[in-house]
Amino acid sequence: MNGPKPNAPAFAAGSVALATPVPTGSRDVLPEEMAELREIERGVLEAFLSAGYGEVATPAFEYDETMRLAGPETARNAYRVTDKNGEVLVARFDCTIPIARLAASRFRSAEPPLRFCYLQSVLRPVEPKRGQSREYVQIGMELMGLPAPEGDAEAIVLLVKVLKAAGLTDFKIAVGDARFFTDSLDSANASLTPERRTAILYELQTRDLVGLRRELAATGGFDDAQRDELVGLAAARGGREVLDRHAADRLRQLDDLLRDAGVDDRVIYDLGLVRSLDYYTGAVLEVFVPSDGFALGGGGRYDELAGKFGRDLAACGFALNMERLHLAVLAEREAAK
Amino acid sequence: MNGPKPNAPAFAAGSVALATPVPTGSRDVLPEEMAELREIERGVLEAFLSAGYGEVATPAFEYDETMRLAGPETARNAYRVTDKNGEVLVARFDCTIPIARLAASRFRSAEPPLRFCYLQSVLRPVEPKRGQSREYVQIGMELMGLPAPEGDAEAIVLLVKVLKAAGLTDFKIAVGDARFFTDSLDSANASLTPERRTAILYELQTRDLVGLRRELAATGGFDDAQRDELVGLAAARGGREVLDRHAADRLRQLDDLLRDAGVDDRVIYDLGLVRSLDYYTGAVLEVFVPSDGFALGGGGRYDELAGKFGRDLAACGFALNMERLHLAVLAEREAAK
Repeated sequence: MNGPKPNAPAFAAGSVALATPVPTGSRDVLPEEMAELREIERGVLEAFLSAGYGEVATPAFEYDETMRLAGPETARNAYRVTDKNGEVLVARFDCTIPIARLAASRFRSAEPPLRFCYLQSVLRPVEPKRGQSREYVQIGMELMGLPAPEGDAEAIVLLVKVLKAAGLTDFKIAVGDARFFTDSLDSANASLTPERRTAILYELQTRDLVGLRRELAATGGFDDAQRDELVGLAAARGGREVLDRHAADRLRQLDDLLRDAGVDDRVIYDLGLVRSLDYYTGAVLEVFVPSDGFALGGGGRYDELAGKFGRDLAACGFALNMERLHLAVLAEREAAK
Repeated sequence: MNGPKPNAPAFAAGSVALATPVPTGSRDVLPEEMAELREIERGVLEAFLSAGYGEVATPAFEYDETMRLAGPETARNAYRVTDKNGEVLVARFDCTIPIARLAASRFRSAEPPLRFCYLQSVLRPVEPKRGQSREYVQIGMELMGLPAPEGDAEAIVLLVKVLKAAGLTDFKIAVGDARFFTDSLDSANASLTPERRTAILYELQTRDLVGLRRELAATGGFDDAQRDELVGLAAARGGREVLDRHAADRLRQLDDLLRDAGVDDRVIYDLGLVRSLDYYTGAVLEVFVPSDGFALGGGGRYDELAGKFGRDLAACGFALNMERLHLAVLAEREAAK
């Protein structure tokens, strides 16, 4: 099996013009890399199963209206096809929404908490020339029917366990609260127009503190102290002291449990952390390693999603990007040499 | 994890109307079934790897023109999307074409034979109310650069090994020759119009011997003996004697090798066997078990496919449908009780 290296570009410079390309943002995975991916998968799935999580798989296409139930923004960037009977289907771009659907329908009368894990790919259209992945394999879990802070603590303890099972030793978990900044924003100024509010949150999401201060000033209705407090919140990052300083009570309760479980040294609280999916309602998290500027994965609490499919279940979960996880394991192995 | 049984319909009679359905031909896989599928996958992949096959994965979407290169009919029934830069992409509906592309480009200068295996899903649009699967997981192999009959024999010996590794004991492999009937047809009447030829081959493909005799009669240009011979070919099924009676020389050479390998007792020759994909050029095969009227999988020789992607490689391969394979294992287990 003497092929090019797994991570070499599909068509190296000077390659024969006959070579047939694959669509941008897609790639072939060759045997050497595939064997390593399978080894990581096995370790992570074993960690999920031994913690009582049952693996599920959901369809490659869902009805468009199913995915739209999750929120107006969530389903915006997705592949759609029209079926032979005229129904609009959307390619799976997220695993949490289908599993919330599955829990609320197939496990309608099962005693909570419900524990699911999965290993499946998701598809998202890419912007030309942005170097984004069109397709990635996610490995993750959903814990449904266990509210905050206990559910969040179980998820974070398990996340530490699966990252170790994948072979990683050097990682941090950034933990924020999807509603803490917005609650503070709305209590400082309850009469924001939706447009101004979206503009302010966009600066938060892109982590542009200068832009955030500018938007707050342009909006009016905030005094200097409020602006300082909101920009301070967006930048607040650290240990327990950050939660105390900003009176982040929900995260303080979570921190107590993480201390009891002995995993608080893995966590960095980040009150400016927001996630792009709009179904999160509480604690949110992202996983970071020294070798990658982007998160390997993330997740959070979504207490209102299963209810949209007919069964109220407080829930949280996380997903890891298998390719990034693998690269992080390789980078750590390389650094240890 | 107290859910409905894995194979229960998604929404049992009398279920609550709130339940959110999944698209026809799709389904959720629940933990009990998933664990069994993973066990079968592990056994089969281990059998492939220990025989020197390296696992690969290919993109969920290919360029439409890539898939069309395989043949005009092959890419007809597939999902297409238009990308943000206007390119037409087609969802993977077959694994052999992308792996032929991969072999011809990424392994352009690797010494043959090349041995690949894979475990990935394929998507095909379903006709409403036909009970077809929109999506299925295929586990399979491709052996490239080893011509007939040696390549075919290696594939069939490995197929017996992987079916045993999956836990099956009672199975048969039907083996035919994609060109034997058409060669006989064309040598009996070299001046058939494409339309008449297609009409005749349609009857062969649907295994309608009465229809086949009718089409041959309607065409003219065949005498009674030729018609009897062609209908006899389409119905010819059995052991070595079938190959001898019809002078099927290519399959006789293959049979010699299968006898040497001690797997000839698993094989039934079937000179009327044809496969729906149009890239096959030689031996074709399908796997049958007593519990299922449909094949669990199939494959064959495709010596002209990799050449379309720039590297001539005689090749063959097979794929098994994971869901059917699992049901066959369950049925055998049940019968043994």
